[in-house]
Amino acid sequence: MTQSTDADRDSALKSRRRLLRDTGMIGGAAVAGALGASEAGAADTDNLPPNAPEWMKTPGDPMGSQPYGTPSPFEKNVVKNIPKNLKQYLSASARTPLQDLDGIITPNGLFYERHHGGVPSVDPAQHRLMLHGLVDRPLIFTMDDLRRFPSQSRIHFLECSGNPAYTKPFGKTASDLVGLLSCAEWTGVSLKLVLQEAGLQAGAKWVVAEGADAAALTRSIPIEKCLDDAMLAYSQNGERLRPQQGYPLRLLLPGFEGNMNVKWLRRLHVTAEPAYSREETSKYTDLMPDGTSREFTFYMEAKSIITKPSGGQRLTTPGFHEITGIAWSGHGKIKRVDVSVDDGKSWQEAQLQEPILTRALTRFRLPWHWDGQPAVIQSRAIDETGYVQPTLAELLGVRGENSFYHNNAIWPWRIASDGEVTNAAA
Amino acid sequence: MTQSTDADRDSALKSRRRLLRDTGMIGGAAVAGALGASEAGAADTDNLPPNAPEWMKTPGDPMGSQPYGTPSPFEKNVVKNIPKNLKQYLSASARTPLQDLDGIITPNGLFYERHHGGVPSVDPAQHRLMLHGLVDRPLIFTMDDLRRFPSQSRIHFLECSGNPAYTKPFGKTASDLVGLLSCAEWTGVSLKLVLQEAGLQAGAKWVVAEGADAAALTRSIPIEKCLDDAMLAYSQNGERLRPQQGYPLRLLLPGFEGNMNVKWLRRLHVTAEPAYSREETSKYTDLMPDGTSREFTFYMEAKSIITKPSGGQRLTTPGFHEITGIAWSGHGKIKRVDVSVDDGKSWQEAQLQEPILTRALTRFRLPWHWDGQPAVIQSRAIDETGYVQPTLAELLGVRGENSFYHNNAIWPWRIASDGEVTNAAA
Repeated sequence: MTQSTDADRDSALKSRRRLLRDTGMIGGAAVAGALGASEAGAADTDNLPPNAPEWMKTPGDPMGSQPYGTPSPFEKNVVKNIPKNLKQYLSASARTPLQDLDGIITPNGLFYERHHGGVPSVDPAQHRLMLHGLVDRPLIFTMDDLRRFPSQSRIHFLECSGNPAYTKPFGKTASDLVGLLSCAEWTGVSLKLVLQEAGLQAGAKWVVAEGADAAALTRSIPIEKCLDDAMLAYSQNGERLRPQQGYPLRLLLPGFEGNMNVKWLRRLHVTAEPAYSREETSKYTDLMPDGTSREFTFYMEAKSIITKPSGGQRLTTPGFHEITGIAWSGHGKIKRVDVSVDDGKSWQEAQLQEPILTRALTRFRLPWHWDGQPAVIQSRAIDETGYVQPTLAELLGVRGENSFYHNNAIWPWRIASDGEVTNAAA
Repeated sequence: MTQSTDADRDSALKSRRRLLRDTGMIGGAAVAGALGASEAGAADTDNLPPNAPEWMKTPGDPMGSQPYGTPSPFEKNVVKNIPKNLKQYLSASARTPLQDLDGIITPNGLFYERHHGGVPSVDPAQHRLMLHGLVDRPLIFTMDDLRRFPSQSRIHFLECSGNPAYTKPFGKTASDLVGLLSCAEWTGVSLKLVLQEAGLQAGAKWVVAEGADAAALTRSIPIEKCLDDAMLAYSQNGERLRPQQGYPLRLLLPGFEGNMNVKWLRRLHVTAEPAYSREETSKYTDLMPDGTSREFTFYMEAKSIITKPSGGQRLTTPGFHEITGIAWSGHGKIKRVDVSVDDGKSWQEAQLQEPILTRALTRFRLPWHWDGQPAVIQSRAIDETGYVQPTLAELLGVRGENSFYHNNAIWPWRIASDGEVTNAAA
């Protein structure tokens, strides 16, 4: 079945006999030394190209053997980062393995999870969204109703506000640290449009959103956000939402802390005052040094992390290594990412991957020649408002020792002389 | 566990007693008539909000019950479109269910498949890429070598060149017609950079790419494309390539016909002439009316299709319906998409979803009021070169009756008075 011609093969064999030199930057082995298999091996089967590996010698798996595909078995360790030995898993979280991912899109199978009452199995045919309160026309929508509205699609990140907490141990990997973070292309209906359909009344200042999970998770959203870029989302990376992300309907509030993006959304109550629900009083509120509470901390501030090299990885050799990571801001676009390879003494501007989208992950990269000496590397994000990602010390100086949420500190990685990468702030 | 306050509940109950009117555009039911469950039902459990569905009454599935997540069981019919009763599945194709998807990203589990010798199970630790021929330094790369190069991430579509063939039956759904089409965020290494590492010699005009499948699929790529935006891709939508898409390494040639984007890439042979392999002679070449062969038809021309409403779907009621679909061009960005709802007599400009990316799917939308009468709807794409997607009749007029590949014709859907949508050109 092969199309390799004799000329191809002759050329390949000749190339192995050439005197080769290694390359300056990264290399790849010179052909002569690295082919491994004997030349005789290539002649076992007339139709096979030189040194054909085992998997070329027999037909592969048939097309469509997986009606819904899954990753290669060789990637079986790339899974959600699930805490071991939790007391219970109903109010808990699972992290995205950021250090194993490229680009900005998180595949749906690895999207982070955070639940307060487990993952309900919601029948979309039975699911309803009620919109009531300070509106002219209270309404109840089926999923089919919502799918008939004009749609929109946008790429946005979602991040838990406790990502990570301020308390040690911070963890070993990028996932341990900030894996309550993912990014997807969302499709749904403009919440503004749906609110206009119902007719907002004077005095409508908040929308209290309620989920259809056993926790009936409830959060109050300022009306300004609801009339800006808020979305009633039913699809994620093309397909319908996954159960863990709110199937069949969730609220999407780009840039706002994760739990406000209420999953399994069943009710929107338009009110004059916030609900002061559990998730905005006993949780998701921080005690400040002066004894006051910092509440309604909606926006996720600018943040970044180097994912490669990062904790748990190892540089196998000195020489060229690309430093790459992700940056994001709840306030808009990432304007710049600086990277330091000398423990913060100096900073270089990283390259940002286009397109740079608002309230989405932005991939950054910096070429780096590692000299084999111990090093501390870190990144800091600057967003379009000019805000600069702070150090942990700076954050603690302002927020005190009792804050739990909204830790967006710079995170340094330590590289040992043997190439091992560890959390420099652990 | 709920945060619903008594005030919330009182308000909800009151809202159901209000006199409500339906809304002009889409509606959603008025609250009074549609809540369904009795008010008494809301009082069954003190902590539950009014009319709580069954899935709020018990805790849901525990967090992390799927270390690698899968879709909701309610979406079990959204799978790849796999031909029934094929003689064999080693050289065959499976289509993406475009009519069930939103946005532009195709989830990896639903990415289209086209194989010529089945899907090999390639061990990434054993896999090698050989680069040889008209280069100064023939090289062999491990996957680790390639991962050390500077990386890049871009969103691009991939499309089989026979999507669809010119021959009836064309099929019933958008997937049947053009489902050999998907779009993902790819990450990998610039092929230009790797070629520069090896050093191109004078006379290098083609790169012959060979896959490590049992078909040793082989295609010749013009050197100009290799030095432009070609990529050695190892990741797709964040995670490593799926086996069906070339794990652990594929060639990505944005805008070029699918099979040139050689999967399981093991060899790049730099040559002065093309290989004239099976896949560029007996396949992927078209017989023209004058008896000549149209060969090396690399670029996928501008194309579009309406995915909603589309064949196999049904409009349940007259009134507002959004028409939405996807457009793409191998030559660059989509400039405009026109939609006709009167069998091609008149055309309206659709709205394009930002960001509009080069050689990527672009989602388009047009608001439409269906009057309940039979209608034929269709879309035509115009790309940044000014090229306009042709009708099937126009294509056949140029290409004749023996062409098989590169059918980018406009595709009309017929809507019957009962709302049923069928293929108007079937």
